[in-house]
Amino acid sequence: MENVSSSFHQLFNNGVMKPEKVREICRNNEYQEPTLGVCKEYLQCNLIVVPKAQAFEFMLFCHRNPKSCPLLEVTDPGQYTSQIAAQGADLRTDLPKYKLFDLGEPVAEVMTIEDIWYDDFVCFLVASTMTFENTLRSKNIPVRHIEEGSNIPLFKTDKKVEGTPLFGGFQYVSMCPMKPDQAIEAIRMAEHYQYSNGTPFHIGDPSQIGIEDLSQPDYGDPVSVAKDEIPVFWCHDYTAHKAIMRSRIQTAVMSLPGYMLVTDIKIDT
Amino acid sequence: MENVSSSFHQLFNNGVMKPEKVREICRNNEYQEPTLGVCKEYLQCNLIVVPKAQAFEFMLFCHRNPKSCPLLEVTDPGQYTSQIAAQGADLRTDLPKYKLFDLGEPVAEVMTIEDIWYDDFVCFLVASTMTFENTLRSKNIPVRHIEEGSNIPLFKTDKKVEGTPLFGGFQYVSMCPMKPDQAIEAIRMAEHYQYSNGTPFHIGDPSQIGIEDLSQPDYGDPVSVAKDEIPVFWCHDYTAHKAIMRSRIQTAVMSLPGYMLVTDIKIDT
Repeated sequence: MENVSSSFHQLFNNGVMKPEKVREICRNNEYQEPTLGVCKEYLQCNLIVVPKAQAFEFMLFCHRNPKSCPLLEVTDPGQYTSQIAAQGADLRTDLPKYKLFDLGEPVAEVMTIEDIWYDDFVCFLVASTMTFENTLRSKNIPVRHIEEGSNIPLFKTDKKVEGTPLFGGFQYVSMCPMKPDQAIEAIRMAEHYQYSNGTPFHIGDPSQIGIEDLSQPDYGDPVSVAKDEIPVFWCHDYTAHKAIMRSRIQTAVMSLPGYMLVTDIKIDT
Repeated sequence: MENVSSSFHQLFNNGVMKPEKVREICRNNEYQEPTLGVCKEYLQCNLIVVPKAQAFEFMLFCHRNPKSCPLLEVTDPGQYTSQIAAQGADLRTDLPKYKLFDLGEPVAEVMTIEDIWYDDFVCFLVASTMTFENTLRSKNIPVRHIEEGSNIPLFKTDKKVEGTPLFGGFQYVSMCPMKPDQAIEAIRMAEHYQYSNGTPFHIGDPSQIGIEDLSQPDYGDPVSVAKDEIPVFWCHDYTAHKAIMRSRIQTAVMSLPGYMLVTDIKIDT
């Protein structure tokens, strides 16, 4: 599988493979790995599926927390075909891996949700932070966890999100250390970047947002921070993931973190 | 009433009266007129109320048509107090006039909806185009219907909106004639203006969007167009108004066109 994956990656990135082809490969269950580095010129997004009964409140949650949940597309109830982000893509099959939740608890990881699809399911496509990381790197702004080949460090803050009766919880952030001039440029870029998660949630002192120890992320791996760098914290879509879990709604499906839909939306890098 | 209104307007605009006071006057049923020209420094918005059963699809409609329906705030089901746009405002009483709809048909105009409020009602606050008009005027870009003291001309286009199964219909636009350099500047300003309805829907030839005759608006009054001007068409929130009507949902409440909520959001003029 390692070799198959490497050769796929090579094809993805030398431009031979377009997003449509990647989605076809996923549909045929021939690709089951994270989509990091796949078709770098194209936007990727997370999938969150909830029943129509909870769809309004989840959309309200996204609207109130746009930096954590930038909505790219929301489908009509029962509709699993993308119309905007990846026209014609079957959202039940075209991502590498899905996680099923019952009452907020993960119950299975699967490669298709065709067999568990209900006609009241609503699909939310939430743009990934990953895309902006590529843009930063193209401007020579480092993204430490990529440089160090580790998983993005995620921290739970002590700041509550703007919740709804059903969906709430705390803000989760990723962290990337930058030199001050790089942080300024990253903020400027984020302000103008259509599909980003917006400007940072916080810069500097981690304790101001309830983070005790940067070397102990709640998820992912710690990254090194140089003496002349300041930590830059970004709203992360894991916030939505957690909100779904703690809501304990009957059913939900989410793309496995990092196993995303490769869209047809070309981004500026 | 004319005199009362004039004196109110004077108080509103010399800065003696703040939005909170205007809302109080509405709450006491002492102001029942359009809010055009009231507290010009503050954003105004339309109110659309639908039952929770239709709230998801209406929010989907707004998300798919952001230029016609820029959502400022959406309340939790049953919640009638604004938290964001006008903190503490009672949305059942603090607008001058409301229109009630049964199965899409207008059935009454009232000054409060306290007595018909249901605990599954959801309030959508949709930013008004009117605010951007003030900004244009402050930059010496003419807004013809204001110059001519007439009602904004609205046209039905032959372009369908991005609908949902329940909410759809055609795009409605307002029209303002401008000199080419003014149109360019207005487009540039709209691009950067946070609460506007976005860049124009169309400029130039009306027939390209199915408008036969500029002197015959579907609603409002015609305005004069000089030889050296081109018509600039803007998405208008009446599109949402019409979508609610044609959906023929059991119940809906909307602020009467032009009778809006004066928010606490200060705008750059």
